[in-house]
Amino acid sequence: MVLKLYYDLMSQPSRVLYILLKTMKYDFEPKYVNLRKAEHYSEDFTKVNRMQRVPVIDHNGFILTESIAILKYLSRENVIAESLYSKEYKLQARIEEFLEWQHIGLRLHCAMYFRVVHMDPILTGRKSDEKTIQGYKRRMMMALDDFDTKWLGRGTAFIVGETPTVADLVAACELEQPRMAGFEPKDHFPNIAAWWPKVRDHFAPHYEDAHVILNKIINKMDRAANSKL
Amino acid sequence: MVLKLYYDLMSQPSRVLYILLKTMKYDFEPKYVNLRKAEHYSEDFTKVNRMQRVPVIDHNGFILTESIAILKYLSRENVIAESLYSKEYKLQARIEEFLEWQHIGLRLHCAMYFRVVHMDPILTGRKSDEKTIQGYKRRMMMALDDFDTKWLGRGTAFIVGETPTVADLVAACELEQPRMAGFEPKDHFPNIAAWWPKVRDHFAPHYEDAHVILNKIINKMDRAANSKL
Repeated sequence: MVLKLYYDLMSQPSRVLYILLKTMKYDFEPKYVNLRKAEHYSEDFTKVNRMQRVPVIDHNGFILTESIAILKYLSRENVIAESLYSKEYKLQARIEEFLEWQHIGLRLHCAMYFRVVHMDPILTGRKSDEKTIQGYKRRMMMALDDFDTKWLGRGTAFIVGETPTVADLVAACELEQPRMAGFEPKDHFPNIAAWWPKVRDHFAPHYEDAHVILNKIINKMDRAANSKL
Repeated sequence: MVLKLYYDLMSQPSRVLYILLKTMKYDFEPKYVNLRKAEHYSEDFTKVNRMQRVPVIDHNGFILTESIAILKYLSRENVIAESLYSKEYKLQARIEEFLEWQHIGLRLHCAMYFRVVHMDPILTGRKSDEKTIQGYKRRMMMALDDFDTKWLGRGTAFIVGETPTVADLVAACELEQPRMAGFEPKDHFPNIAAWWPKVRDHFAPHYEDAHVILNKIINKMDRAANSKL
């Protein structure tokens, strides 16, 4: 059984799958797709995924896109442990309730803030205008507040119960993204601040490994900002 | 086994679940939540769903939100026929690949165009500005083009293969929404035009039943527009 993972660790859902497969000690073939070099738009990669996005898996010739659909498939194929993605109907539904909510509830807003503040200036050579940034920031703050109070902050250690699931890993990897735009969710949301280290610890050392490049970028930005003071 | 469905037929995912349960001849208890009267913000409904949205199910006391998570749960509980939501791993993954894509790939853009053109003027008493409308329209057209060419237009009668699945019903109900904003997807996208009647036929008469109010609103708007000519 050969599993290929097309990924770039700059992509949040790519990191989710990478960390999970490493945590499961599953022997997969990593296929790096360099987003910064626009390799996802290449003819070769478009043949793999007509949507031109990562992550993608190729499981013995069965090519599947969309990270949440991939999680579900890998759970059914017993690649992901049941402790992380329950097969008990109600617990599974609770995990999926979050996985479905997060697309527009959380991911959209964190990703858009990251794009407007961090990516667009790189791509266009000029800073986004302040009013645009503030609009995206306001929507991200509302999304993070929902996550902090309506998903966390309900008296359990993790999103669904007392042990981590794939829902926590998906959320955690997403929340790393606005950090590259200079925004630290943990400094503003107490439940996120309490929960996040527990997720990182559970998926150690692979969580940190998958975020090495991201953290290097953040540290470099911090140094640049400090040198301007 | 008692299944309650909290819904409003003005909500696309509410219609999906309503049509499916009717098609399955499943005896459920309809709990109408009038969105226009803001009943979803009431104290009583907030106790049912802290996110203040429909649809929601209550299955013998197990309350579940998020329509796609509900579809999956009802499939596992054998409320939805396997012909509409396969349990074969790969076919199931193909259906879920679409269900996960459509959140930000299709739904977001159709819903936002509907909101900006149809809802905001009702709520604020003034028309959205033309530049804003055109921005949302452009993004909706790109999303509809993706759906038309990358999901349909691949040589099969339906999104996944030759028979309809829940993926088709989710997409069809979503595409009804911009019609209320005066935009007819079938007039612009040939694959959508060929596919849509097949979905409506398959889920007849419940599909049309669930869209009676929506179609009344559209007819009324058409008459108002014509009377201005």
